[in-house]
Amino acid sequence: MLEHGGRLRAAAQRFGIPVNDWLDLSTGIAPEPWPVPAIPLDAWARLPEDDDGLEQAACACYGAAHALPVAGSQAAIQLLPRLLPAGTVGVLAPSYAEHAQAWQRAGHRLLRLAAGEIEAQLDALDALVLANPNNPSGRLFAPAQLLDWHERLYRRGGCLLVDEAFMDCTPEFSLAAHSDKPGLIVLRSFGKFFGLAGVRLGFVLAEAELLEQLRQRLGPWAVSGPARAIGLQALDESSAAARRLRGLRLQAAGQRLAALLRERGLAPDGGAALFQWLRIPDAAELHEFLARRGILVRLFEQPASLRFGLPGDEAGWQRLAQALDDYR
Amino acid sequence: MLEHGGRLRAAAQRFGIPVNDWLDLSTGIAPEPWPVPAIPLDAWARLPEDDDGLEQAACACYGAAHALPVAGSQAAIQLLPRLLPAGTVGVLAPSYAEHAQAWQRAGHRLLRLAAGEIEAQLDALDALVLANPNNPSGRLFAPAQLLDWHERLYRRGGCLLVDEAFMDCTPEFSLAAHSDKPGLIVLRSFGKFFGLAGVRLGFVLAEAELLEQLRQRLGPWAVSGPARAIGLQALDESSAAARRLRGLRLQAAGQRLAALLRERGLAPDGGAALFQWLRIPDAAELHEFLARRGILVRLFEQPASLRFGLPGDEAGWQRLAQALDDYR
Repeated sequence: MLEHGGRLRAAAQRFGIPVNDWLDLSTGIAPEPWPVPAIPLDAWARLPEDDDGLEQAACACYGAAHALPVAGSQAAIQLLPRLLPAGTVGVLAPSYAEHAQAWQRAGHRLLRLAAGEIEAQLDALDALVLANPNNPSGRLFAPAQLLDWHERLYRRGGCLLVDEAFMDCTPEFSLAAHSDKPGLIVLRSFGKFFGLAGVRLGFVLAEAELLEQLRQRLGPWAVSGPARAIGLQALDESSAAARRLRGLRLQAAGQRLAALLRERGLAPDGGAALFQWLRIPDAAELHEFLARRGILVRLFEQPASLRFGLPGDEAGWQRLAQALDDYR
Repeated sequence: MLEHGGRLRAAAQRFGIPVNDWLDLSTGIAPEPWPVPAIPLDAWARLPEDDDGLEQAACACYGAAHALPVAGSQAAIQLLPRLLPAGTVGVLAPSYAEHAQAWQRAGHRLLRLAAGEIEAQLDALDALVLANPNNPSGRLFAPAQLLDWHERLYRRGGCLLVDEAFMDCTPEFSLAAHSDKPGLIVLRSFGKFFGLAGVRLGFVLAEAELLEQLRQRLGPWAVSGPARAIGLQALDESSAAARRLRGLRLQAAGQRLAALLRERGLAPDGGAALFQWLRIPDAAELHEFLARRGILVRLFEQPASLRFGLPGDEAGWQRLAQALDDYR
């Protein structure tokens, strides 16, 4: 298994600090959960039914023609490489590492590409996989650029997979509206923006035929009843104003985090609303320094860097600021 | 997608009866849900962590050496055929139809075998797949018989997959205690016995190496936080007495259902605590007759038969009895 953020139990054990005493900034998950609506007993008790309106709500919310609910976009990341014939796959690097691993395990030939290398390599690829905005770099790709790459890939029977896990605060960059084009696959995450990562919900936006293949491979009842109920409520048109407000608050929090780091001589190299990314030679030392103070951030070794998630309350902001002051 | 019980919305539309007016006996899910414990906010909000004790609780409850939690045993049914090299697979028939479909789609050669045909065909098989007790026939296979078949299969590098989705009321028939033998795979369902099918939780009991392969194919966070929290509570030793009581009540209800049918000249051909199975030439007519009265049972075409689940309250029992009286 790859290393991920959020492994608080392991950190608690390693640093001898009780789980409840940590400030966990190791994930890119919104720190304040969307209020969980009352879950009808039937959602727990009965087999989930597909025709509950969740797909339609997701389509309307994301502006897509077709949407397949999955138990977290990770479920699609695991499966998609196995639906396509073996080929040469360009994967943005650094990025969310599960993509590269899944394509490699499925028998594809992997090219890890920096953003600046994609254009030159594109015509040698059968598939291109990237996250937009990227994680952890925060780099945003322009839709026109991605649509051009998709067009060139598809002309040769290839495909473009765009993981939009962190797109909710910048919907103008989304390819959702184009996702019914053959050869274009868009992944959306529910848990990050809504701060409900434990729910396990995500969506694949793509042409209907591919979604049907995925549906068959996942089998019936792939998404839990409570996840469907929460998704329906949160993605519904009636929640649109609350979603917009949440987006604005998260963007402001992201800017505050960037400023907090910058003011301490730790100017981020990139970021999105939900995280900031910091390349520094002493990344491992700072990670350890913060962990000994019960602050967990995400350490990357290649390149040496840290990803900071958003503190969830004022005490958390102060605690992070103080610890960084102490480090410098 | 195969036909399944529990598709109440579709039935409501077809028969013009509102969803809430139905008596749904179309599944083998316990009608009274295990009381859902309070779900900690963190279970919704945070990424689920593997080291929460759920695996240990499942091992202790089922009496197995190793257990992998999955999002419903269906998730394992989808995946297991793809972990094994293509071969000849004997699948008990009739049985839960997802098994045969999954093995066929994964490229295996399928032999559909009646229970009485297994012994004669066993030495030609690379894998044998059956449910114990079987669904819908209720047939129970003796552990000694299954262990003998496993031994013979494994000697030639083959394997035995036993789906124990309906085993909770007859644990003396379970192979869980033997599930660390290479070549033996046992599936357990959480939602049926506990009446919480929407939660999506199940377990694969097998040798550690196979579970690790499955874990890698499923990827991280395959089971939701709430499902893990409920599973932990329900499978814990502290719930053992409540589980035993539930088992006794379900067995009594199963006997009541068998008697109710028998007294109306519809003696079941088999059953388990959670359902009774009735082979009759006029299965389709009786299905339709009941549906027009808002009672949904599961119709099978091959062989022509009906599966009756348990009514959840006294009004439901009376309604079923009255409808069957009216039919005869």
